[in-house]
This record gives sequence, C-alpha cells and structure tokens, in this order.
Amino acid sequence: MEDHRKVLAETFDIIQEYIDSLNNPAQKVNEFMLPEALKSRFDFELRANGTPYNALLDFIRQYLHLSVKTGSKQYLNQLFGGLNLPALLGEFITSLSNTSMYTYEVAPVATLMEMEIVRKMNSFTRFTHGDGTFLTGGSNTNLVAMITARNHLFPEGKEKGMAHLPTLTAFVSERSHFSFTKAANAIGLGTQNLKKVAVDNHGKICSRALTEAIEASLNRGEVPFFIGATCGTTEMGAFDNLAELVPVARRYNMWLHADGSWGGSAIMSPNWRHLFNGIEQCDSFSWNPHKLMNIPLICSVLLVKDASVLREALSSDDTSYIYHNDDSSQYDLGPKSLQCGKRVDSLKLWLAWKYFGDEGYVARINHLFALAQYATSVIEQHPRLELMCPTQTLNVNFRYVPASGDEADKFNHKIRQSLVESGKSMVNYCHLPNGLSIRLILLNPDLEKSDIDRFFRNYLTEAKMIEEKSVTKV
Amino acid sequence: MEDHRKVLAETFDIIQEYIDSLNNPAQKVNEFMLPEALKSRFDFELRANGTPYNALLDFIRQYLHLSVKTGSKQYLNQLFGGLNLPALLGEFITSLSNTSMYTYEVAPVATLMEMEIVRKMNSFTRFTHGDGTFLTGGSNTNLVAMITARNHLFPEGKEKGMAHLPTLTAFVSERSHFSFTKAANAIGLGTQNLKKVAVDNHGKICSRALTEAIEASLNRGEVPFFIGATCGTTEMGAFDNLAELVPVARRYNMWLHADGSWGGSAIMSPNWRHLFNGIEQCDSFSWNPHKLMNIPLICSVLLVKDASVLREALSSDDTSYIYHNDDSSQYDLGPKSLQCGKRVDSLKLWLAWKYFGDEGYVARINHLFALAQYATSVIEQHPRLELMCPTQTLNVNFRYVPASGDEADKFNHKIRQSLVESGKSMVNYCHLPNGLSIRLILLNPDLEKSDIDRFFRNYLTEAKMIEEKSVTKV
Repeated sequence: MEDHRKVLAETFDIIQEYIDSLNNPAQKVNEFMLPEALKSRFDFELRANGTPYNALLDFIRQYLHLSVKTGSKQYLNQLFGGLNLPALLGEFITSLSNTSMYTYEVAPVATLMEMEIVRKMNSFTRFTHGDGTFLTGGSNTNLVAMITARNHLFPEGKEKGMAHLPTLTAFVSERSHFSFTKAANAIGLGTQNLKKVAVDNHGKICSRALTEAIEASLNRGEVPFFIGATCGTTEMGAFDNLAELVPVARRYNMWLHADGSWGGSAIMSPNWRHLFNGIEQCDSFSWNPHKLMNIPLICSVLLVKDASVLREALSSDDTSYIYHNDDSSQYDLGPKSLQCGKRVDSLKLWLAWKYFGDEGYVARINHLFALAQYATSVIEQHPRLELMCPTQTLNVNFRYVPASGDEADKFNHKIRQSLVESGKSMVNYCHLPNGLSIRLILLNPDLEKSDIDRFFRNYLTEAKMIEEKSVTKV
Repeated sequence: MEDHRKVLAETFDIIQEYIDSLNNPAQKVNEFMLPEALKSRFDFELRANGTPYNALLDFIRQYLHLSVKTGSKQYLNQLFGGLNLPALLGEFITSLSNTSMYTYEVAPVATLMEMEIVRKMNSFTRFTHGDGTFLTGGSNTNLVAMITARNHLFPEGKEKGMAHLPTLTAFVSERSHFSFTKAANAIGLGTQNLKKVAVDNHGKICSRALTEAIEASLNRGEVPFFIGATCGTTEMGAFDNLAELVPVARRYNMWLHADGSWGGSAIMSPNWRHLFNGIEQCDSFSWNPHKLMNIPLICSVLLVKDASVLREALSSDDTSYIYHNDDSSQYDLGPKSLQCGKRVDSLKLWLAWKYFGDEGYVARINHLFALAQYATSVIEQHPRLELMCPTQTLNVNFRYVPASGDEADKFNHKIRQSLVESGKSMVNYCHLPNGLSIRLILLNPDLEKSDIDRFFRNYLTEAKMIEEKSVTKV
C-alpha cells in the first residue's frame, strides 16, 4: 500500500512538471525521431517477466519526453490540442472510477451528465424534440448518422440488409472528410455510391451541382438518401450553406446531416451562429468537443432532430442479460448505441462546461476567430508569404514564396519538415487546387498574438536557412 | 498558475483517498439512487456562467461518492472491474499528453507500443504473419471483423456496396454477444441474415447444427461468408470449440472469427490454452484487455491472421491532408482503421504488461479460475444454493432456492435488487433456459476466498431477510 502511495505521488509530480513545462518557451514541441532510432532508444519489448515500479516511472518520463507536446502553444498541427485543466481533471476521474455508460445502474451520474450535455447542445441546434449520443470519434458520428438515415428511410433494411434495397446514393462535397468514404464502405453502401459534389472557390458545396448530381443519380435508377454537409472543412475551414441544402433534402426526401466535427462548437458563439443557419432543419449534427472545446480525446457527439431515430436504428433484441426492465431502464443509454462497453466521455466535458460556462466558451471561440484574422493579416503584410485561400474561419492556409524561384510546393514541404524536426513549431499541410498549403489551425484559446508572431518567425527562419543553404550549394 | 497547482494537488488528494477507500471493507460498492432522486441532489445544469474551481472539486467529490465503485472487491456485476495501478497511471499520462494514434508523427511512442502489443498478442494466437489494431470496444472488434471478412471475400463490395452482392449470411451461436446483431445491422448485412445456431448444454455452438444451418442457407441461394465463434460467452463463460469450426469454415470458404472479448486474455495461461485450440487457423480474434486484464475502459484489440486484410478492407483514398508519404508513413496506423482521431489505448496496457509480465498475468488469470472453482464449491455445499449451469471458466451461475417454495426467478431478482440497493455487493443476472440466474463474475485478481465468502454471506443475508419479511406479512 505504501508502495502504491509513493508511486502515485511520483506520478503526480511528473504530471505537475509536465504541465509547467508547457508554458516554458524553451520547451520543444516535438523530439523528432524516426521509428528505427526510437526503437533502439526505448525498450518496447514485452517479456515473460515483469518490471518494478521505479522502472515503470522511468518509462513514463521517457514517454512524455519523447511525445509530441500537443498542449504547447507551438502545436498547430492538428484539429485538437491545448490543455484544458477542468477537462483533464475529469479525464483523471473517469480513468479512476472506470465504468461503462451502458446502464444507468453502473453509471448514474455520468448518464445524467450525458443527457444534460445533449439537452444543452440541442438548445444551440434548436432540435426541440431532439436527442443525441456520445460516440467514439468524429468519424464514428458520420458513420452512425449514415446508418441512422438508412434505417430510418428504409426500415426494412435493418432486418433484410442492403442486398434487398435498391442502390442507395449519398452526397457530400469533394472537400468533405474521408470518414464519409469509410462510412460508405463500412455500412455496405459502397464507396462509389458516395458522390463527391463540386465546391465553390471557398470550398463550400455548390447546391446547384448537388441537385444535378442527385438528378443524375435518379436517372440511373438509384435512390439518393443522404446529404452530408460540412460545418468546417478539414483543410479550408469552409462551412456549407445549410439553409440552401434544406430545401434540396426536403424535395428529394433525403436525410440531411451536418458534420460539425471540426467547426461545430462555433455554434455557441452568437458572432458565428450565422454559419449554422438552417441547422434546426437538419436531421443530424456531429459536434466534436475534443476539437474546438479542447476536451482530451475522445469526446464526440451525434445529435438528432427526432428523438426516436437512434433507438429505432441501432437497438437489438438479444440484450436481456444487460438491459433489464427496471425502474431506471428508460435511462439506459446502451440501447441507442452500437457499443456495449462505452467509456465515460461526458464527465470531462461536463466539468469543463461547468467551469467556463457558455460565456467562457464563447469568449474562447471568439478569441480564436480573431487570432485567425490576425494570422491572416500577418501573411498579407509579408512580402514572401501568400494566402492559399481566403480565411473563412479557423484554418489559415498559406505558403512561402521562395525568392529563388524554387518550386513552392517542394520548398514549403521542406520548411515544414525542417520546422517539425527542429521541435520549434508543428504545423501541418494539405493539398489545395493551387498547390501545397501550410494549414495553420487556430484552436488553442490560450494562444496570444505573440504566439502567432513566434510561429511565423520560426517558419520564416527555417525558410531563410533553407534558402541560404541552397545558395551556398550553388 | 499557482491556482492550477493547487487544484491539481487537491485532485491528487481526492484520487489517493478514493484508492485507499476501495480497500476499506466499510466502503459501499454503490450509493443506490433512482434518477429523479439523483437529479434533485446534484446540480447537473450547464449554464451561461461558469463555476470556480472549488465548486468543481466539490462536484468531483460528489461524482466519486455517487458512482459505483467498480474497483471494489464486492463489484462483481459486469465483465470489467478491479483497479490496475500501472494501467491507471498509463491512463493518466494518456489524458495528459492527449494525442491521436493516426500518424506516427504525432504519436511516435504510442504507435510503437501498439505495434509491440499486437506482436506480443500474436505470439499467443500464433498468427505468424498477422497484424492487429486497437479499436473502440469489444463490439467494435466484432463489427470490424465482419467488415474485413466481407471486403476480403467480396472485394468488389467495398466500392459497389452490398446491393450489388448476393444475400450474404453470417453464423454465430444463440449465446453469442448481441454485438454481432448490431454489426449485422450496421454493415448492411441485415439482422435476419445473422443466423443463430443452437448450443449444447454447456452453451457451446453445435458444429453439426452449424453445418446444417450453412447448408440450409446455401439451399436458399444465399452465400454464407462468416462464422463468429465465441471464446467466453457473456452469460455462461462457454468457449466454442474452434478446432471443430476450422474445417467447417474451410469447407465453405468462410471467414472464421473468434470473439474473445470476454475470455480472450486467458490465452496467455498455459493451463487454459487448450480452450483456444485451433485459434491459429482462425482469420481474426477479438481480445479485450479492458476485461480480464483489468485495463481501464476502453482497451480492445482485433487481431488478424493475414497482415494485409485490414488495410485492404478499411483504407480510403481521400486522406492526403493527413497521411503523407514520408519516412515514417509506413508506421501510420490510421489507414488500417475506420477512425480518424484515435485515442491512445496502448500506453495503459503496455505499462501494465511491462509491470506484470506474462508471468504476472498468467498468475492472475490462474488465480481467477481457481476462485471460480471455489465459488462453485461454496454453492454446491450450500443446501439452499443451486448451480444454474456447470462452471466452465470464470462465470459462476447460481440461484437461491427459497425455503417457502416461492417462485425462484422473482425471489432471486428481489435478492439481487435488494443487495444492490444495500450497497454491500453488486452482482448481475441473466436468463438461462432453466430460469433467472445470478451471474457471479470472477475477474478482479485482487479477490481472495474471503471476498467470495463475504459475497455469499451478503447474498444469503438478503435472502433470509426477504424470507423473514414475507413470513411476517403472512
């Protein structure tokens, strides 16, 4: 027992030190190491015999040292990051109390928290008779939305299978997330029956192209059933115009899903609520608090307009060993889920929301939108930086224009790689129609303008070093 | 900052106290409260304004007080539980360092840990050219196994969808887990095309009945493609005889999956390895360390015999923004997953395995099998307790035989409910052919015989109290 107390106390010290280090500007965001080098440095092998706690604590220290510091202010690489202390405390408590969300009986408080969060979220979507469920990631919300749509529109499919349905088709923009493709594969729709519709130069789906694609599908004898709109595309941060899509979905009796995995949390901000105009007439909405609300992974919610659809679409009848008919069974969340064991992802979000309040989150989100504008202005004012697309929300796409006339794609790839290897900043890139684009993501509300300045300084320093090296070589 | 340090320190105290309390015999396993009562006691509502940290800490204390103590030795209710300290430390560090497993770049150490665990696990399955992937739960492993089987056997289905395939059929025992039904729904197979095959009186699938069911399906013009065997059924803990199923699968060119979500970890024990005879000839295997290895939820792995099948079945091609072609891209785990963001579930298991070693886990598992035998002998020796089925592995099914001649089902349900409400022990029940059965689950290796004795004492005390009450009433 005393041994346990000591190990815990040491772990707590390690945790405290790690959090402190995130605010140290000298802390590298990344200890770059290729797999072979890492393998030779870290004793990964699991063996017949065990290892004492002091060795375990060393592994933990090494793990943290060698890991990417996603809580660092120079971590700008992905659609998650930052350190949200109330949520982190929640995650510790979830791990400690280790239960499953399938029944109210074994997760009473967490169940009512999940229900309260869904209620609260639906006050923003205005799904006044809605419901929702916590799922295992943004991709999973799109998958479950597609299954729910299919089973709602073709109830016989649940029992009989898709071999007994006509060829169904689903529609998303060509800038939508790949999880729709994976969902089309998984649910038996077939990836070729997921139709990618053209976007305008802001990356929003063209509703006219959508209508044409639906008509073409009908002409082929297929049955269009699902439109997946995007609220915040992965690359450009574009929001499809939901209000334009609602009448299309109604006309063709299709399910309209809005994938807000990335941008969804912005619905809380009155300043940005207009991006979601029409949401109340969508059938389902993905909202992913592990992105813009900085909750530790995973925290993903699928909201639905009609409270009955999830249970209809997802329940099964061979569950009597677990779902008993008792006083609290109407509170069991399992029957409206594809999961059996389901982690408590509600507590961390509930604590963070309780701590910040709507107001705190709105301030955080507004601050991030302002920072994206600031980063954009830095790019616009710099002679060698170029915007790759208009900044619409929180994705700022740019590149460095090499003085040498070198090919920009290769050159920016080299800068980015060199920056990542330096451990000074981490930023990712994507491919836009006009070339390789450095995608700066604003989602850590603890960032200030000085952090943005620092990022660009780091980027430009690498650029200059590479240019100088190539001059020397010549 | 100082504020943060204080909040963290207080949280650590709370965590330490909670762990200590689990070893206090006076600690209730459960504070039973119906939803309406709980709602009036706990301030669930999320509001516009925030809440200071001291209030947050109170919520955390309340949360823990009102939660089910799944780490208690009287928590015998579900297929998870116990407190595994090395794994818990891992879970804390995972939450703290918050990254996603999609690319090696952002999760270098965790990626190599996942690969090492898969390698290690496949040394037990003897999938010498195998692979595997961490998934989001046991149900999810069965779902992904079914998708992988479908896409491997009908590669055109991935693109064209199931509407272009013949009617496929899948086969599981009537005592298999409901996740197969949910998977049949999700992947577009249709629940009626999941055929439930009869079991023998030990709850194992009858291979003759299976062959007959396959033949009948062929005669209906369907295409049987998938057999889902179970290694440890939820209710009786039965292991299907894999060696008998292998030739059936081969004869009909079907995929053979073994669902070891519950019993799978027993494969590590030489004493119980015979339960898995034939596993090396299965195509896939679900192994769920969050059950028998006491890892905090979720920790679930799908292993496959042929290393190429996962990527073939699950990859998509619109992922260039995230999966770059660089020096470490062959180490990216994302392409063989349906997920995008994927939580680090490898660290906690890796640390626990490193700590205990194979030997430690084998000892834990053997101890649990011995405890199940001990519990069985207690039942057999007690005049009013009755076994509901032979104890095969770690599920001990029994009931109390009321002296009064009362109906046993209702009576045992009443005992169980009353016990749960008392907070003295938590045990669940299921429905077997011979009636309602109390299902005692042995999975917490910190249990000793005295804990089993205590459980039965608690159960019998409730039984006696109920009997006395009903006598008084008369």
